[in-house]
Amino acid sequence: MAEFQLAIISTGGTIEKTYQPHSGELCNETSVLDHMLAQLELPELRIERVRLMNKDSLDMTEADHALIASGAHEAGARSQGVIVVHGTDRLAQSGAATCVLKRPPVPIVFTGAMRPYELRDTDALQNLTEALLAVRHLGPGVYVAIHNKVLAFPGVIKDHAAGTFQKP
Amino acid sequence: MAEFQLAIISTGGTIEKTYQPHSGELCNETSVLDHMLAQLELPELRIERVRLMNKDSLDMTEADHALIASGAHEAGARSQGVIVVHGTDRLAQSGAATCVLKRPPVPIVFTGAMRPYELRDTDALQNLTEALLAVRHLGPGVYVAIHNKVLAFPGVIKDHAAGTFQKP
Amino acid sequence: MAEFQLAIISTGGTIEKTYQPHSGELCNETSVLDHMLAQLELPELRIERVRLMNKDSLDMTEADHALIASGAHEAGARSQGVIVVHGTDRLAQSGAATCVLKRPPVPIVFTGAMRPYELRDTDALQNLTEALLAVRHLGPGVYVAIHNKVLAFPGVIKDHAAGTFQKP
Amino acid sequence: MAEFQLAIISTGGTIEKTYQPHSGELCNETSVLDHMLAQLELPELRIERVRLMNKDSLDMTEADHALIASGAHEAGARSQGVIVVHGTDRLAQSGAATCVLKRPPVPIVFTGAMRPYELRDTDALQNLTEALLAVRHLGPGVYVAIHNKVLAFPGVIKDHAAGTFQKP
Repeated sequence: MAEFQLAIISTGGTIEKTYQPHSGELCNETSVLDHMLAQLELPELRIERVRLMNKDSLDMTEADHALIASGAHEAGARSQGVIVVHGTDRLAQSGAATCVLKRPPVPIVFTGAMRPYELRDTDALQNLTEALLAVRHLGPGVYVAIHNKVLAFPGVIKDHAAGTFQKP
Repeated sequence: MAEFQLAIISTGGTIEKTYQPHSGELCNETSVLDHMLAQLELPELRIERVRLMNKDSLDMTEADHALIASGAHEAGARSQGVIVVHGTDRLAQSGAATCVLKRPPVPIVFTGAMRPYELRDTDALQNLTEALLAVRHLGPGVYVAIHNKVLAFPGVIKDHAAGTFQKP
Repeated sequence: MAEFQLAIISTGGTIEKTYQPHSGELCNETSVLDHMLAQLELPELRIERVRLMNKDSLDMTEADHALIASGAHEAGARSQGVIVVHGTDRLAQSGAATCVLKRPPVPIVFTGAMRPYELRDTDALQNLTEALLAVRHLGPGVYVAIHNKVLAFPGVIKDHAAGTFQKP
Repeated sequence: MAEFQLAIISTGGTIEKTYQPHSGELCNETSVLDHMLAQLELPELRIERVRLMNKDSLDMTEADHALIASGAHEAGARSQGVIVVHGTDRLAQSGAATCVLKRPPVPIVFTGAMRPYELRDTDALQNLTEALLAVRHLGPGVYVAIHNKVLAFPGVIKDHAAGTFQKP
């Protein structure tokens, strides 16, 4: 079985929010990516985990987008594919920044979730599953994989009303 | 099979909070009690559902506690047992108000949850299961059933540090 | 917080069946009790686990019922309560054998499940939650706690058509 | 939003097995595909469901494989993509039969599961998610999508020891 070297960069966002019983709120404090990965059958993946930040993307600055773009390209230089787990509110900005920085030699696939993994009715596992499949079969470029779709940057926007992403 | 006539009063609280994708918050907007009840084997219960209010108990006033107490006694007059689903922060106040109003002819069992049912790691089903068993086997009185315990009012307090209830 | 010393005896049965991908069957090979206990809030319990056997109860002999009865009484001599996790098909026989052997000084509560814990739609957690609450609040005796009911031996039978237990 | 016309053919197999409490076995009696589809975000899909058979694939005959192949091509003539949900034991045979019959004008993607959807630890949702993404982005041909991989027929075999599919 041929191994595939994958880098997964976590940045926080809804997908990774966990419940704080004392405040009753959902926050970005720990990464739940490892729990999600443990539930999937990924027989050929060798995964490098990169914990870049753990932020609600609404709190991201231009410097954060630039850091994510450079981090994604650095990871792409040492692997066959990169996944960036990101809050959906600013995912399109980080994707665009990654796309304009330079053309990567491998696929860089952004994903996120509208409903945290901690909820029993979540889209997190679906979207991560899609990103993990897409990253192995796409050519070089920057993409978002979410809600049964793969869209290539540039030109991707979040459709806030529909709660998903579009390329108009 | 002998039927048992049960009234379940919902008042809101953490146990019933649902996720709002647009705000990213957990709120009391719909009752998830019916979804929970559908997952349990309750072959002999005939259940009357009473939707009294849908509040985070931190927002409850003295008038709310009095309304819950009188609602619980009214339900107790027409059934063999009463369960009150309640936010844990003010559960002890509503329980105490129910206890001092008068002695009920049937068991009135309060319960709630520290983590909403919508979370995959929730104590809501455990606590509701315990309340449903307790109400069928206890004598008349006012109780809380939660976290593997049944405690009788008066004298029950929430132990905020431990995240559960005690009777000192 | 006062601790409660509980012994839990596992004997196998549907509640503990796990899936074997190669044969496509559900078998009794490992105990899933620890996974179930980890999902419940049991702040005051000190639990002793006793792995007595791991059998589909349809395969149990009279010697097995006698072994379970003596094991339950031995556990009852060194704890404040005993739970026996058992296949439902022969649970009534083991319960009766435990009841006739002698009167225990503590509650001995049998439980089981009609649908294995490994299924997403299972009654295993409900029944274990009920047994764990019942064992702390019942007087000395032998019982089954299942499906929102506690029934005292002797005289308990499995109602195969309804898929639950009755005391006619 | 552009709609994508998808046909999903169900044939049975492990992925759709449900638990029979009276026999204690997992059988192919009802289709659980609709429950799985309801859990996924599929905003642009218009789905035609085709219930071709409901068999453990170990029980399939050559006539069954031929029926599945012709059914897949017929569905491909009236849609933009086809998914065939199939038992893994004979999936490679049905895929090969579909591949040799003729070249389809759209992608035909087989998938299945090693562990039924009814189990809490299942690969069914992962594999269906992968098939649903693959069918929208692949060119015409016959494929299997499972366990983070898309493999094109001919030449796909089940690796029984590893519990997955390979293309040697």
